[in-house]
Amino acid sequence: MKIVIIGATGTMGKYLANAFEQENEVVRVGTKEGDLQVDITSTESITNLFKAVGPFDALICTAGPTYVGPWKNMTDKEFRKGIEGKLMGQINLVLIGQHFINPKGSFTLITGALTQEPVSNFANASVANGAIEAFVRAAAIELENEIRINAVSPTVIEASPQYFPFFPNDIPVTMQQLEFGFSASVFGANTGQVIKPY
Amino acid sequence: MKIVIIGATGTMGKYLANAFEQENEVVRVGTKEGDLQVDITSTESITNLFKAVGPFDALICTAGPTYVGPWKNMTDKEFRKGIEGKLMGQINLVLIGQHFINPKGSFTLITGALTQEPVSNFANASVANGAIEAFVRAAAIELENEIRINAVSPTVIEASPQYFPFFPNDIPVTMQQLEFGFSASVFGANTGQVIKPY
Repeated sequence: MKIVIIGATGTMGKYLANAFEQENEVVRVGTKEGDLQVDITSTESITNLFKAVGPFDALICTAGPTYVGPWKNMTDKEFRKGIEGKLMGQINLVLIGQHFINPKGSFTLITGALTQEPVSNFANASVANGAIEAFVRAAAIELENEIRINAVSPTVIEASPQYFPFFPNDIPVTMQQLEFGFSASVFGANTGQVIKPY
Repeated sequence: MKIVIIGATGTMGKYLANAFEQENEVVRVGTKEGDLQVDITSTESITNLFKAVGPFDALICTAGPTYVGPWKNMTDKEFRKGIEGKLMGQINLVLIGQHFINPKGSFTLITGALTQEPVSNFANASVANGAIEAFVRAAAIELENEIRINAVSPTVIEASPQYFPFFPNDIPVTMQQLEFGFSASVFGANTGQVIKPY
């Protein structure tokens, strides 16, 4: 299976790339490093990426820039970071990528527990997550050629202890749990699901 | 209580304005008609509206433009209608409006059953709804001065039978149910809730 991982140079993406390349062809995509590069806030950059990748069987996205900061500083301007990044960036990967993915292929996007469990300073990420979770449910009934789509929604991940203080209510997910979550989407048969790997 | 209704010239807004003006001061806001006008896709227009309104106790938004159409035509361009309208339009009403609303005031935004129950052609609305529902949960823990925020999430409304064919799974909500939903938010004590008035 040919798996494209967007965010492959980040903590989650790197772990998943290493795990999945044992038995699959993995294309590592980063913003500046990796096999190929993409700026997910640009539809032109996304289109160019898919042209360079060629046909593929699965797309995983672990990239989701959002604004993190005090609510009092939050205006339309700051909010756009997550709207253009984690929200429209991931949606455009699907709207454009559906024309390049093989039949029976799958898209797996990233959200997080903030959808249901907000914490201070992360409203922008909550919004992007809620949008993407609704999107996978809606896209699942629209995509043709048996193409599937799911989201993986972890809590804070164990490999990023620097974030633990911001998520006092979270029991961190292990990297293996995270991998199981993405495996369920990529190698399973489900669609339109929000997979909580814990 | 001084209640500002955005979308007051639409089907839902008009009903709510008539119901609530019996015992409250209602400011009817439309895009072209009403006591005052606003373009919710413009932060400048929103700011000017609040300056004209002066201090108020509750804001209700029933306005939520989204793109409705075949998935195959859905690109970034079409998707922006809901992103700028129902999603960022409503978020900016809160981010800006919080500086004008009275202490203990409330914001009540509009979503809909499409968050959880997608139907063909309405992916853009599903996304806006999911985003707004996550937003009210996040904003509820950030807003100061005991300001509350909720969303009302109806199914298709009985006063709009022209939409029934698009929502074969929905039992329409009555206008009275809709009113109860908004009343619960405006006159109740809850915050961070998605109120399903059925």
